[in-house]
Amino acid sequence: MAFRHVAIIGLGLQGGSIGLAVQEALPDMRVTGHDISAETRLRAAERGLVQQVFETAEEAVSGADLVIFCVPPGAMGAVAAPLREAIAPDALVSDVGSSKQLIARELGAALPDHLVIPAHPVAGTENSGPDAGFAALFRNRWCIVTPPEQTDLLKLSALVEFWEALGANVERMSPEHHDLVLAVTSHLPHLIAYTIVGTASDLEDVTQSEVIKYSAGGFRDFTRIAASDPTMWRDVFLTNREAVLTMLQRFTEDLTALQRAIRVGDGDQLFDHFARTRDIRRSIIQEGQDDSRPDFGRSDHGKGK
Amino acid sequence: MAFRHVAIIGLGLQGGSIGLAVQEALPDMRVTGHDISAETRLRAAERGLVQQVFETAEEAVSGADLVIFCVPPGAMGAVAAPLREAIAPDALVSDVGSSKQLIARELGAALPDHLVIPAHPVAGTENSGPDAGFAALFRNRWCIVTPPEQTDLLKLSALVEFWEALGANVERMSPEHHDLVLAVTSHLPHLIAYTIVGTASDLEDVTQSEVIKYSAGGFRDFTRIAASDPTMWRDVFLTNREAVLTMLQRFTEDLTALQRAIRVGDGDQLFDHFARTRDIRRSIIQEGQDDSRPDFGRSDHGKGK
Repeated sequence: MAFRHVAIIGLGLQGGSIGLAVQEALPDMRVTGHDISAETRLRAAERGLVQQVFETAEEAVSGADLVIFCVPPGAMGAVAAPLREAIAPDALVSDVGSSKQLIARELGAALPDHLVIPAHPVAGTENSGPDAGFAALFRNRWCIVTPPEQTDLLKLSALVEFWEALGANVERMSPEHHDLVLAVTSHLPHLIAYTIVGTASDLEDVTQSEVIKYSAGGFRDFTRIAASDPTMWRDVFLTNREAVLTMLQRFTEDLTALQRAIRVGDGDQLFDHFARTRDIRRSIIQEGQDDSRPDFGRSDHGKGK
Repeated sequence: MAFRHVAIIGLGLQGGSIGLAVQEALPDMRVTGHDISAETRLRAAERGLVQQVFETAEEAVSGADLVIFCVPPGAMGAVAAPLREAIAPDALVSDVGSSKQLIARELGAALPDHLVIPAHPVAGTENSGPDAGFAALFRNRWCIVTPPEQTDLLKLSALVEFWEALGANVERMSPEHHDLVLAVTSHLPHLIAYTIVGTASDLEDVTQSEVIKYSAGGFRDFTRIAASDPTMWRDVFLTNREAVLTMLQRFTEDLTALQRAIRVGDGDQLFDHFARTRDIRRSIIQEGQDDSRPDFGRSDHGKGK
């Protein structure tokens, strides 16, 4: 492993999981960290998310040859800028943000003397904060790196090696393509989930307790991702605006078509559409990106529990 | 238990689960069944979904004092009508359909001499067919009964007792209110999930293999319910058209508002909305209607698996 000391700025779900995963998979590597919240720093120390939690980001990055920013997309630039002097000139700077074009620009502008290779581990849960992290988060998940056209290939391969050591499979993509792919696989689904959960809670002819009571009919699946960190998701939509709006437009067109099929009673169109979407599920399970147990194994089928 | 013999017409996820649950919870009760598909009848017999599988529905219902139709909502009337003579005059007729107003009318018209008390167990998985059923499906789930205004209260309480014996909690509702509540807690979520999975698979600038690969970002949650039985869901939308279109209208308004917030960069509106939706998730978990483990316990967090 080319890196000897990784500094993690931001000790929530992502930063905390990286810290725990490094200590498990790369025991020889030094892991320091910092979080802007004193409460989070305390919990991070208690849980041992990193070997040493520092009061300031300057102390945390001192001596590190890899610095990973794990803060909300909208905060990257502001958090990185003050560290221009504190980060070693030959250190590699990376992040875990869910949108890459804007973050690459912001980190580049904040740290003009440093090499920045943005990354995005496509892994997470609905939980956030210093108690949410766990070492296995990145296992069998994809991590997308979006290096600039001209980059230091040694540093790039070192970053790839780092993520592979944490259990991830690494892919290289352009920031533009990343933002388009994630708009459909992650950002749009979250927007839709946030929307429908809001709609359901605002009805006057159906009570909120009824919505909760009968959520097993399908609604509950949406509430999981609609419980994700609001600050991070606000920033995702603001930092990947164009791609999200593009995908949303396509979604709205398709929804309008199905709405019309329901209104005019076109059962064949509905059936054909519903039959088609089954195959995608099958492929996702074959690729090991989801749990094949019915209901995600929620109710321990057959076990009589 | 007031019933001595239940006949199940349709041996898929719901019918098969009822058969298995009855044999587990009500060992003294006779359970017969029939399915229109010879293949399904064979598997049902192999799995022992009911005590006896019959070639014809007439034989299956003969002597039964409870007949439950577990066929797609659109097929209820056509399947029930030929059984007018075969079903004992004092037998109670019920069903498990996801929309209640139209099904109540159809079963009433098909069996004018019989007492019909429709029911809807709010429980299911993305799987369907004779291999999908399991005895625990209804445990700690709600079953909604929608009896007519004037009904036989002894038969009604017997039906309630039957579902409680299978582990369900029973609620009484008017068919109209049921269809509105389920439109938001089940039908709209399925429509949205079917739509977004279709949208994602039709893109030209993002390949389907990319959608599958990076689905862990949130998309995969939608694919679960979008893998549900196409025939049943086509019928649900056609038989609960008005309520679904009403809820869809509200959803579209809310989505348009969030779309605008993204376009104009109104971070506060996004944050407020996203923060609000977290509480619903918490309540659903408190009510025991979903799995509290992060990611539905998909990745066995912390277990290092």
